[in-house]
Amino acid sequence: MSRNLLAGVDIGGTKTAVVLSTSPPEVLKRIEFATSPEQGPGPAIHKIKTAMRKMLETQGQTASSLRGIGVSCGGPLNSNAGLIQAPPNLPTWINVPIVDMLSAEFGCPVQLENDANAGAIAEHRFGAGMGYRQMVFLTLGTGLGAGIIIDGRLYRGASDMAGEIGHVRLTQSGPVGYNKAGSAEGWTSGAGMTQVAEQMLRKAESRGEGSVLLNAMKRGSLTARYVGLAARSGDPVARRIVRVCGLKLGLSLAILVDILNPECIVLGGLAVRLGDLILKPARKSLQREALKPALDACRLLPALLGERIGDVAALCVAMEAGSSTDISSRRRS
Amino acid sequence: MSRNLLAGVDIGGTKTAVVLSTSPPEVLKRIEFATSPEQGPGPAIHKIKTAMRKMLETQGQTASSLRGIGVSCGGPLNSNAGLIQAPPNLPTWINVPIVDMLSAEFGCPVQLENDANAGAIAEHRFGAGMGYRQMVFLTLGTGLGAGIIIDGRLYRGASDMAGEIGHVRLTQSGPVGYNKAGSAEGWTSGAGMTQVAEQMLRKAESRGEGSVLLNAMKRGSLTARYVGLAARSGDPVARRIVRVCGLKLGLSLAILVDILNPECIVLGGLAVRLGDLILKPARKSLQREALKPALDACRLLPALLGERIGDVAALCVAMEAGSSTDISSRRRS
Repeated sequence: MSRNLLAGVDIGGTKTAVVLSTSPPEVLKRIEFATSPEQGPGPAIHKIKTAMRKMLETQGQTASSLRGIGVSCGGPLNSNAGLIQAPPNLPTWINVPIVDMLSAEFGCPVQLENDANAGAIAEHRFGAGMGYRQMVFLTLGTGLGAGIIIDGRLYRGASDMAGEIGHVRLTQSGPVGYNKAGSAEGWTSGAGMTQVAEQMLRKAESRGEGSVLLNAMKRGSLTARYVGLAARSGDPVARRIVRVCGLKLGLSLAILVDILNPECIVLGGLAVRLGDLILKPARKSLQREALKPALDACRLLPALLGERIGDVAALCVAMEAGSSTDISSRRRS
Repeated sequence: MSRNLLAGVDIGGTKTAVVLSTSPPEVLKRIEFATSPEQGPGPAIHKIKTAMRKMLETQGQTASSLRGIGVSCGGPLNSNAGLIQAPPNLPTWINVPIVDMLSAEFGCPVQLENDANAGAIAEHRFGAGMGYRQMVFLTLGTGLGAGIIIDGRLYRGASDMAGEIGHVRLTQSGPVGYNKAGSAEGWTSGAGMTQVAEQMLRKAESRGEGSVLLNAMKRGSLTARYVGLAARSGDPVARRIVRVCGLKLGLSLAILVDILNPECIVLGGLAVRLGDLILKPARKSLQREALKPALDACRLLPALLGERIGDVAALCVAMEAGSSTDISSRRRS
């Protein structure tokens, strides 16, 4: 029987998706369930295996048809050792040997990659970054992850940590991200925008200025998504919040442009949802801060894979896993 | 006759060196002269050609023995087109087609490279970075240039502008470098340290605190080199100046560590001359700012080539030039 199937596993803090494909980015089958990290990794890993078996069965296939499995997950993780190391959104997943677990179960090559790197590969191979050699992908999700493509390939750095622009401090104080006040993740991630919103809403309220966001804040249900919706609908305070985060996003982009001189930066998450509301101020501070010849060479592109990015990213990792037949050499390479 | 000779041309704002070698980093012959940029590029280029002919003659050779010529020079420049584009230290060298000029004269492949990139190649091939795959080299000279080695090769970026950490803003105000107040070049280059020194000396003086540097400042002869000598000899104000610049150097290093996760950062210029006086505070702020797993994977190494770096860097560029026999394809590649 030919090994013609690829499986992707996208493990998030809220939900996990398992997908099957013969030719990414197309998806044959997809099963999604709650990750429930408060229960520890056991139940979710059991569900991953069950979902995979079930999907194989409905395709009339067995595990022997699997060419590779790709797992995409938030960092920190060790892709060489195949370990998930208690990422902030999965605090109970402490040194989970996901690669060994799945390769023992399904007998095929398995690879683990952090979601920003996997997303960078996906947008480079099938999305906005197609055809570019030097690219940076920014997740702009709950956190701010980045994946760097150099000469058409993922750049990992010395110890799998490259691309942590989210940890770079933009201001001496400010919203906290990556355990650091005023960091790029503090200012420009979803979680960071929520902090910026709370501070700006309190100021607005003390001035007697209203906002549709005030009630959400008081209910404790303020999210970046909600700030974005309010900004889209024209709420002035929400627009100012997005503008402040956008200006800081531009500072982060300028650092990447000055150091990496990429051909393009692909922006996911908030940038796709908010469009020019966040990109216009970002371009403004980027133009003020970055070196002109490097900026002239760099295109800012919204990510193209949208909500599919998690599935396609995991399948791209599966393609890398499946491109080697020797599991051990691939994992330790 | 075999093409066994490589020639290097290191063009600086003060002096230019022309060197001849059969096996870099060894140097067979070397001629140095004043660049005198105030006279325009003509006289210096004439001297480069004369020096080259003279060295070939004393070796009993002709231009037909030249395998390649490498030119190392401050940026901005266009390495693909072979143009020197009025770098700050050579303001009269406006779009000088140095590559065409020398290849027409000597009939061999010629390559132009900015001095930070050339220095990175030299330290990687023959200096402190030998054997590392992911490396950053910082010049820490009059300016702050950086060359990035990725997977063992120079990384240029989309338009030859990669590595401009000197342009990244560390503080909202501060010493000016790269036309930007508070930039990494403003805080951590030789020219930047002189500005920091002037400000701190004025404060010290207003408090009635003495320093051997005060007279130099009043004579208008304050330099980073002199600040370094005074710090080495124990002058308290000079030590504080170096410490302030060192703390900011650490911030610049942290950005490089977080984004590039290199195996090592090789530090030239000020770091070699000042040693722990500047590296100790740099390590302190680096440890505070950078991600621990990325920092653990990164060694800080003083450059090894010392005063020879300009010669060896130009010869490394000559090696790259000489590794292709087709001039046009090499220059446009």
